[in-house]
Amino acid sequence: MISTWHERIEELYDQMVEWRRFLHQHPELSYQEVKTRAFIVEKLESFGIEVKDNVGGGGVVGIIRGGKPGKTIALRADFDALFIQDEKDVPYKSTVPGVMHACGHDGHTSTLLNVAQVLSEHRHELEGNVILLHQHAEEMHPGGAKPMIQDGCLDGVDLVFGTHLWSTIPYGQFGYNSGDFMAAADALEIKIQGLGGHGSAPHQSVDAIVIGAEVINQLQLIVSRQVDPLKSAVISFGSFQAGSAANIIADTATFKGTVRTFDESVRAHIEKQIPHIVEHVCEAFHATCEVTYSRGYDAVVNHEKESKVFKKIIDSTFGKGVATLVPPLMGGEDFAYYLQERPGMFFLTGAGNPEVGAKYPHHHPKFNFDERAMLMAGKAFLSIVDYYLCPQDNQSIEDEKFEKADL
Amino acid sequence: MISTWHERIEELYDQMVEWRRFLHQHPELSYQEVKTRAFIVEKLESFGIEVKDNVGGGGVVGIIRGGKPGKTIALRADFDALFIQDEKDVPYKSTVPGVMHACGHDGHTSTLLNVAQVLSEHRHELEGNVILLHQHAEEMHPGGAKPMIQDGCLDGVDLVFGTHLWSTIPYGQFGYNSGDFMAAADALEIKIQGLGGHGSAPHQSVDAIVIGAEVINQLQLIVSRQVDPLKSAVISFGSFQAGSAANIIADTATFKGTVRTFDESVRAHIEKQIPHIVEHVCEAFHATCEVTYSRGYDAVVNHEKESKVFKKIIDSTFGKGVATLVPPLMGGEDFAYYLQERPGMFFLTGAGNPEVGAKYPHHHPKFNFDERAMLMAGKAFLSIVDYYLCPQDNQSIEDEKFEKADL
Amino acid sequence: MISTWHERIEELYDQMVEWRRFLHQHPELSYQEVKTRAFIVEKLESFGIEVKDNVGGGGVVGIIRGGKPGKTIALRADFDALFIQDEKDVPYKSTVPGVMHACGHDGHTSTLLNVAQVLSEHRHELEGNVILLHQHAEEMHPGGAKPMIQDGCLDGVDLVFGTHLWSTIPYGQFGYNSGDFMAAADALEIKIQGLGGHGSAPHQSVDAIVIGAEVINQLQLIVSRQVDPLKSAVISFGSFQAGSAANIIADTATFKGTVRTFDESVRAHIEKQIPHIVEHVCEAFHATCEVTYSRGYDAVVNHEKESKVFKKIIDSTFGKGVATLVPPLMGGEDFAYYLQERPGMFFLTGAGNPEVGAKYPHHHPKFNFDERAMLMAGKAFLSIVDYYLCPQDNQSIEDEKFEKADL
Amino acid sequence: MISTWHERIEELYDQMVEWRRFLHQHPELSYQEVKTRAFIVEKLESFGIEVKDNVGGGGVVGIIRGGKPGKTIALRADFDALFIQDEKDVPYKSTVPGVMHACGHDGHTSTLLNVAQVLSEHRHELEGNVILLHQHAEEMHPGGAKPMIQDGCLDGVDLVFGTHLWSTIPYGQFGYNSGDFMAAADALEIKIQGLGGHGSAPHQSVDAIVIGAEVINQLQLIVSRQVDPLKSAVISFGSFQAGSAANIIADTATFKGTVRTFDESVRAHIEKQIPHIVEHVCEAFHATCEVTYSRGYDAVVNHEKESKVFKKIIDSTFGKGVATLVPPLMGGEDFAYYLQERPGMFFLTGAGNPEVGAKYPHHHPKFNFDERAMLMAGKAFLSIVDYYLCPQDNQSIEDEKFEKADL
Repeated sequence: MISTWHERIEELYDQMVEWRRFLHQHPELSYQEVKTRAFIVEKLESFGIEVKDNVGGGGVVGIIRGGKPGKTIALRADFDALFIQDEKDVPYKSTVPGVMHACGHDGHTSTLLNVAQVLSEHRHELEGNVILLHQHAEEMHPGGAKPMIQDGCLDGVDLVFGTHLWSTIPYGQFGYNSGDFMAAADALEIKIQGLGGHGSAPHQSVDAIVIGAEVINQLQLIVSRQVDPLKSAVISFGSFQAGSAANIIADTATFKGTVRTFDESVRAHIEKQIPHIVEHVCEAFHATCEVTYSRGYDAVVNHEKESKVFKKIIDSTFGKGVATLVPPLMGGEDFAYYLQERPGMFFLTGAGNPEVGAKYPHHHPKFNFDERAMLMAGKAFLSIVDYYLCPQDNQSIEDEKFEKADL
Repeated sequence: MISTWHERIEELYDQMVEWRRFLHQHPELSYQEVKTRAFIVEKLESFGIEVKDNVGGGGVVGIIRGGKPGKTIALRADFDALFIQDEKDVPYKSTVPGVMHACGHDGHTSTLLNVAQVLSEHRHELEGNVILLHQHAEEMHPGGAKPMIQDGCLDGVDLVFGTHLWSTIPYGQFGYNSGDFMAAADALEIKIQGLGGHGSAPHQSVDAIVIGAEVINQLQLIVSRQVDPLKSAVISFGSFQAGSAANIIADTATFKGTVRTFDESVRAHIEKQIPHIVEHVCEAFHATCEVTYSRGYDAVVNHEKESKVFKKIIDSTFGKGVATLVPPLMGGEDFAYYLQERPGMFFLTGAGNPEVGAKYPHHHPKFNFDERAMLMAGKAFLSIVDYYLCPQDNQSIEDEKFEKADL
Repeated sequence: MISTWHERIEELYDQMVEWRRFLHQHPELSYQEVKTRAFIVEKLESFGIEVKDNVGGGGVVGIIRGGKPGKTIALRADFDALFIQDEKDVPYKSTVPGVMHACGHDGHTSTLLNVAQVLSEHRHELEGNVILLHQHAEEMHPGGAKPMIQDGCLDGVDLVFGTHLWSTIPYGQFGYNSGDFMAAADALEIKIQGLGGHGSAPHQSVDAIVIGAEVINQLQLIVSRQVDPLKSAVISFGSFQAGSAANIIADTATFKGTVRTFDESVRAHIEKQIPHIVEHVCEAFHATCEVTYSRGYDAVVNHEKESKVFKKIIDSTFGKGVATLVPPLMGGEDFAYYLQERPGMFFLTGAGNPEVGAKYPHHHPKFNFDERAMLMAGKAFLSIVDYYLCPQDNQSIEDEKFEKADL
Repeated sequence: MISTWHERIEELYDQMVEWRRFLHQHPELSYQEVKTRAFIVEKLESFGIEVKDNVGGGGVVGIIRGGKPGKTIALRADFDALFIQDEKDVPYKSTVPGVMHACGHDGHTSTLLNVAQVLSEHRHELEGNVILLHQHAEEMHPGGAKPMIQDGCLDGVDLVFGTHLWSTIPYGQFGYNSGDFMAAADALEIKIQGLGGHGSAPHQSVDAIVIGAEVINQLQLIVSRQVDPLKSAVISFGSFQAGSAANIIADTATFKGTVRTFDESVRAHIEKQIPHIVEHVCEAFHATCEVTYSRGYDAVVNHEKESKVFKKIIDSTFGKGVATLVPPLMGGEDFAYYLQERPGMFFLTGAGNPEVGAKYPHHHPKFNFDERAMLMAGKAFLSIVDYYLCPQDNQSIEDEKFEKADL
């Protein structure tokens, strides 16, 4: 019974906080999460859960087999930290110089571990199985999701769900959407090779700055002229470095940027047109160029049916108005790849609360979240499992709420 | 008699080289030329020449009074060094780390000192006086020429001449021109203040890089559309620095450049239009800007009559074909200010000779010159003095050569 | 009973075609639809329908009062033609030179008249009323919708529906969407006043072409940099005219364009920023400008609830798969204003069929539509009325289908 | 004796005016100057001058053989008119609708005819010959000069001189210069082929206006970045035509311009770089282009020695201050080709005088000149002939003035 599960996870709240704070004090960078992984394995095994370690080169998969046959639901939590110096003034501050859980993955991990404990205690009630996807290396491309999938972590899985604690949504809310949810985020580096020379003799040089300026502006035309106005695309350059002396014409100009899209055809168009334009503009002015377009994670595209189901579950669990539609985010997440393989969805668990200092954006040196959000996320996970694996529990949801679905 | 003078300076050649090499080993930065100044004063006084020290805050003026009344001719040599590490492999390499005579001012100084010695020995032959302008701080704006003039160094002077040893003209030649000879070189720094933000949300930021790129390109239109095609102007930006992270829209963009002109009205137009354009483009896109336009030295404009006279003198002294017309240079020289006050001209003394390693451009860490060029420059100075202050000597020049002047 | 109504309108099909063809032969331009209006009034009155003529300066409103109280549903059809020469080769070709029903408004009108006849024959079955909105001047801004609304045509109306016969959707289909459906289409004219002069003396002129080119390109930055990437905006210039002689710098440059948006804040931003940018760029280069931004119709934004209801109705009436979601259109429609006042929605009735020559886009001189589409539209209108005004008929719809709504 | 010659041409002044006015009333377009040519031939033959008609397809060459052997001096006058409607209100207004001597070629012709009369009367005094070059088709590329030269008009010629009556120099003055005197004027037409489409769907089209705007601006960079700042170049587009409807993306953009240069290497660079840049920018954005670069006349480059001689002659004839240096003109003249074959120079004869209505620029419908300027030009021609062909006359010039030459 879902109410029992929720009561149980409430009982575990202190432990949830404790584990999160422990992880927060001992953050590990992407692909280097040795101790974190050991911590997770130890906890899962302590619940009697079957564990596969080092999945996809660094992930941990737990398997909770239910009492009866049924669907298999995967829940995912990522566990890597960032190369950021913790500037918070809290007792559980990072003890590792220059490394910090500035994105809440510590909270994700503790949440899923405690969810696992509850479910392991109630495994006989389940008509089906739960797969716990503790994923490494979300923060650093190419990410842990792909190799874990290649290593079979979705084998037998029917549906997959994940969440992110989100400091810009207030604690107490969930954010969700159907379809495009988080953009594909690609990286771009352009180096223009001109020919340096004295500033007083431009005709004897190839001015990388002027050519670079042309390139910057012409690439903007991709967005304004070449992309379907009904689709989204951003091309932003955050860095432009060229030359040093005022009176020496710069030999090279290097600029770095980011491309954000949801639609694969738009993305592929931009990926192709950027070097096409840069090369032609450079050739027009006798410069050469190197264009490096590095695809980041694909867009996270939530499945429509599961998004609706999520809404119903949250309405039923927490009441109407708790789950709200949010516009798509322009950032990237490798949860994208699970959703390319299986139905499911990714949601945001509101974790902002200025009163407890949870007011900084993700990746900020003072980032923090309201720890009670872990309980919200945990209950949501439990309700999702309950909905799919305890069907007799949820006929009322079906009957009462389905027809009011107003996604 | 000029032939006697030339013979005498040839005798002094070893001393000329010795003094130059001594100065080369002990270079001093602009405005800090204490020992160099003392060296000059000591030498001039040893010739029995009347000396004014510390003129205009750092220059030395020597006065050679002739035996009869007549014109007063000023000859100028600058004596400061540069903030460059000497990379030559010669016994007389700079002994001061990071400081080097990389522009030949050591040669200028030794040349003029030896010219002074010759003239002091023959002062009774002169119908008029010679002023020796040993100038400090040519390399660093605002330069030594202006304060020396303000301090009276041109008082009583009728004509002024100067030369620069020039490594890109072969030893044995002189370069000269009438009118525009060296451009005014002004410095430009532009800082654009946008509003940083995440690369995925350009609409919430003001993109300093895109605006900077627009500015760079629109400023080019000044040259192509606003300057008389018959006049010269260059606007070059050698440095463009903005942002660091690929995915963070840059808050500011800073670029530095140089403006070269000959014509004061063109210069004043550019000085006024650059901030005008930058401000309006920035305002168009809700950015702000700081534009700093720093005038460098004015253009060196040779006087026509003295340029013709110079040609005749060189033809007479060295033969036809030794003085050749050269196109104006786009660089700056504060000799400009002497020519704004008095008739005169500035010429280049060819000093290039790959066989003796004199093949690098000025300000290069391996810059050097063929030391015999000092003798050429010295003879030219002596002939100029002879022409103006020994009129009976030069009737033949007048008669023979004047009508063939083919400037 | 809806099935009876549908049978009845099928019986009227020949009349529907006949009337449409009559209107097609006698098209009238916007604001000049005198005979068309008389035709409509005559028909409505012949059905015994209460008519208000000349509503809002040119529209006709018919009122069908039901047998019982209930909701009031408005149905709209526009009836003006275009300034286009009919190039079709059909017996019912336009008889008015240069004027043509090239957008299907003849079909809209005949459809609604026949719907009116059916409903007038069944008015006792209605629990509520039907308002027939025969609107003039849809094709020409400011349009007939606004004045008709101001003249009270929506008084007492609860819901409003309209359709457009659409030649690029195949006959047999309906296109619909919730939310943004048709963009706001605004017109833009920019005149740049430079200073003409001889092509060889750019510095004595202000080059309107170069400035115009800068303006064109910088306005593109609004879309790429200033609009939320999740929202749509288009700024296109279709015409650029400047100068005539190759060697005379153009005094003026005039360009005309269109702006398409859905979101009012985006639209207002663009409306404000275009003159802001143009003025500053012009001032930067000493030109002046006139910018005329003329708002066209607002965006047509379908109401979510009525869009879902429409889907259910069409599913129920024609079967699943007949009503398909279509992406928003970038064109304009003054149906927008009805939906700003009342709940409702606008849908497209597929009318394309190459076999009957219905293969040209709207406003094409050979535009035509499959006339059976009028029957589709008429049945859809009747089903909508039935759904709202014959509730006992539709309990089954409610029960059976609501929970499967998959908008 | 030159004084006799000058007196004689003064006597002929009324005839000079009469002939000019007759030609003014009967202007003929380039390559169609049948009657004008007959008029010239008739006059020359009436003086007993040997005439070659139809030289180079339309020119007339007169040969005045002197009494003794010596140099051969060619004097040139062009005689075609323009496709401009005469708007002056004078009795001798053009009688040919739409055709007008709006550039003074009527004056050139009458001047040279009267010079010819004087010289024919004094032919025995000449030590050498005079060639009269009455040239057709100066106004229309490829011009009459080249075919006349190919047809031998310069055979045996040692020196060539020409003048243009010039309304923007006041009557009483001459303008001259050495070296670059009139620019090469080339024509440029660029057509960009994009892909039309609806203004609301830029991604389905290739926007010729936006690409055209990019091209316009990038071509400006040739002048600002690729041309030696000490050399002159202008690229101006006077016409930009694209599209007609505001909301239809333009299929094509066509722009026409002019290129002015003096230096052949600069010209060749621009001729090559313009299509290079246009093609690459178009290809960058998937457009195609046609670039037509049509060379006009080469630059008129006056020979240095003859320019100095001209100055001396004018000083001697009219006094100092009458011949003034003028900056180069950016316009074109096919006199260029004579100076590529023979030493010589081209000068401007001041003809402006607002009091007699001579205040409009060349090619203006109200263009006129002070007719006394013909006398000035005639005397200058006579003095030039005298200088070269009556050497005993000019020893005084040589002796007195040569050494004061102050070009």
